[in-house]
Amino acid sequence: MSHRIAVIAGDGIGTEVIPEGLRALKAVAERFDIALEFQTFDFGSCDYYLEHGKMLPDDWFEQLKDFDALFYGAVGWPEKVPDHISLWGSLLQFRRRFDQYINLRPCKLMPGIKGPLAGRKPGDIDFYVVRENTEGEYSSVGGKMFEGTEREVVIQDTIMTRTGVDRVLKYAFELAATRPRKKLTSATKSNGISITMPYWDERVEAMAAGYPEIAVDKFHIDILTANFVLHPDWFDVVVGSNLFGDILSDLGPACTGTIGIAPSANINPEGNFPSLFEPVHGSAPDIAGKGIANPIGQIWSGAMMLEHLGHQEAADTLVKAIEAVLESGDAQLLTPDIGGKGTTQSLGRAIAEHI
Amino acid sequence: MSHRIAVIAGDGIGTEVIPEGLRALKAVAERFDIALEFQTFDFGSCDYYLEHGKMLPDDWFEQLKDFDALFYGAVGWPEKVPDHISLWGSLLQFRRRFDQYINLRPCKLMPGIKGPLAGRKPGDIDFYVVRENTEGEYSSVGGKMFEGTEREVVIQDTIMTRTGVDRVLKYAFELAATRPRKKLTSATKSNGISITMPYWDERVEAMAAGYPEIAVDKFHIDILTANFVLHPDWFDVVVGSNLFGDILSDLGPACTGTIGIAPSANINPEGNFPSLFEPVHGSAPDIAGKGIANPIGQIWSGAMMLEHLGHQEAADTLVKAIEAVLESGDAQLLTPDIGGKGTTQSLGRAIAEHI
Ligand SMILES: CC(C)[C@H](C(=O)O)[C@@H](O)C(=O)O
Ligand SMILES: CC(C)[C@H](C(=O)O)[C@@H](O)C(=O)O
Repeated sequence: MSHRIAVIAGDGIGTEVIPEGLRALKAVAERFDIALEFQTFDFGSCDYYLEHGKMLPDDWFEQLKDFDALFYGAVGWPEKVPDHISLWGSLLQFRRRFDQYINLRPCKLMPGIKGPLAGRKPGDIDFYVVRENTEGEYSSVGGKMFEGTEREVVIQDTIMTRTGVDRVLKYAFELAATRPRKKLTSATKSNGISITMPYWDERVEAMAAGYPEIAVDKFHIDILTANFVLHPDWFDVVVGSNLFGDILSDLGPACTGTIGIAPSANINPEGNFPSLFEPVHGSAPDIAGKGIANPIGQIWSGAMMLEHLGHQEAADTLVKAIEAVLESGDAQLLTPDIGGKGTTQSLGRAIAEHI
Repeated sequence: MSHRIAVIAGDGIGTEVIPEGLRALKAVAERFDIALEFQTFDFGSCDYYLEHGKMLPDDWFEQLKDFDALFYGAVGWPEKVPDHISLWGSLLQFRRRFDQYINLRPCKLMPGIKGPLAGRKPGDIDFYVVRENTEGEYSSVGGKMFEGTEREVVIQDTIMTRTGVDRVLKYAFELAATRPRKKLTSATKSNGISITMPYWDERVEAMAAGYPEIAVDKFHIDILTANFVLHPDWFDVVVGSNLFGDILSDLGPACTGTIGIAPSANINPEGNFPSLFEPVHGSAPDIAGKGIANPIGQIWSGAMMLEHLGHQEAADTLVKAIEAVLESGDAQLLTPDIGGKGTTQSLGRAIAEHI
């Protein structure tokens, strides 16, 4: 039985790192005798938009819904298409329509990567951010009144449902339960945002009652971002709303120096629709076409995909291959962003060969 | 002509650092021959709430409105009164009713303070966060439906007005214009929050047209928090909505290691109502009563108050006194949080004496 993977390279360096992601996946699939079948799509990119006037064909949902996973590069190229069109027309559609209600990102100090924090070494920082990925602050409900006048007022709703909140919390508690420290931190702002955030706290408390073995704490988002910088070792699993999770899952990898190489998973845990795996980094128009983009985010995203598809050992092998190549410190292989003189391909090949 | 200052110590360490703030203010006022008149109030604290069932007397507005400034310690003590009651019943009332629509916080690497970032030294980081302080995400408009059922849904509005957005932007541009680098960074999230945030961007663009000498850029809040950690030297004046400003003005001082000593100003620039000056830190129930709270946040807030009242030289002198005592590294004087063995009083006295 083979896993069917839809591959969408998207824009900019997405088209450069996807081939390296595939190379690594093929290597590890061969070693562990996993059958992967890839099919490539050209939509979900700004070039597609410029040609067709939309980011996706009308039947994208039908075309993609039966795949086992989506392997995405990066989308967006503001000079071609405004971000709110390219992103809402692709990535955010997938998340919403495929009900990928979990956005999962590891924040981990990796060997050979110089992070911005003083005195931290690999092993010191190793946590997950679990982000609600379908509702909350990203609602598109609202509008404008008295447009163009001094009285102009703009309103946008944050919408949380019990279904939406409980399911992400459940996922986060279950994840915490699999980890040695069994610790969960909730991101809130109930001291300032007085309706939705106290509700979030209430649901965290209700869910915690079912997980007595998990140590639960909460921080307001302002001091939580401060603690990511001051005490990143405190965290194990951090759960937040769509916006707070978005912020924390960039800040976390920034604190570990891995923002250019971090992976992310947009997960539909029930598996009734495909989940989507993509690097945290964007399409980076400034370095696109130069062949120097770091492919690790894409490859690491492939590892998360394998884990999701049930191949834990293969996933671990892929991550270890990344770590080994980073640890080698071989400047000929590494890309310039991590101090090397190599290319997207040299780094991708080195990781694939290590497998 | 003397300045009339209302003093509210509030809760916890607020009552310990306020006397040191006053000591420093009196010293500098004497030296520069500034007439300051202080009047102390016991409301705006959780103890007041426990006695009176409310955080403030009914006529608080009348009692306070004619002062030239409010000098606040810290409010909140969750074991006595839930935060959303104590804070919405005091601090947030002042900000809203006195139309203190600017929240201003310096993020500055100080001598003698060990920050969390590797390889940064005093001078490398020196910027302001300007936060909108009255509207936006802190709206209290919204509600709950299908309460207590699986269909439960909670909604809260983010509300931005042209008046509200433009005036904080104007303040931020004016501030940037006074600084050597003349740079303004706007915090947005228009790629995800699709109604209010594009509006914010639009107003930034409109305002920028009137300030051709200011270099303007913008970052989405997720990558902006990352850049606070990775490139804090990029920033000069950073402006954000109520929530984004709240986050950035904790994260900024965290990056400089000054979260325990940073000041903040809640400003009504027109001066039709008093502005409010308070340390960034909270009431810290865990160390309250031990006499070891660091008074620098309170004293530095006093400097911001003097600056606001038109006494720039006195304000600078106060900040320089803080820096000099920090630089001395004298463990007998410094409080434990910054590596000393001293007390709130020893540090407060040292600063006052230095003036
Ligand atoms: C206490 C809380 C309501 C407040 C805020 O969010 O405004 C605080 O974090 C601040 O920044 O002064
Ligand atoms: C591009 C943007 C809409 C997106 C988000 O905010 O969700 C991105 O920041 C992410 O985290 O995947």
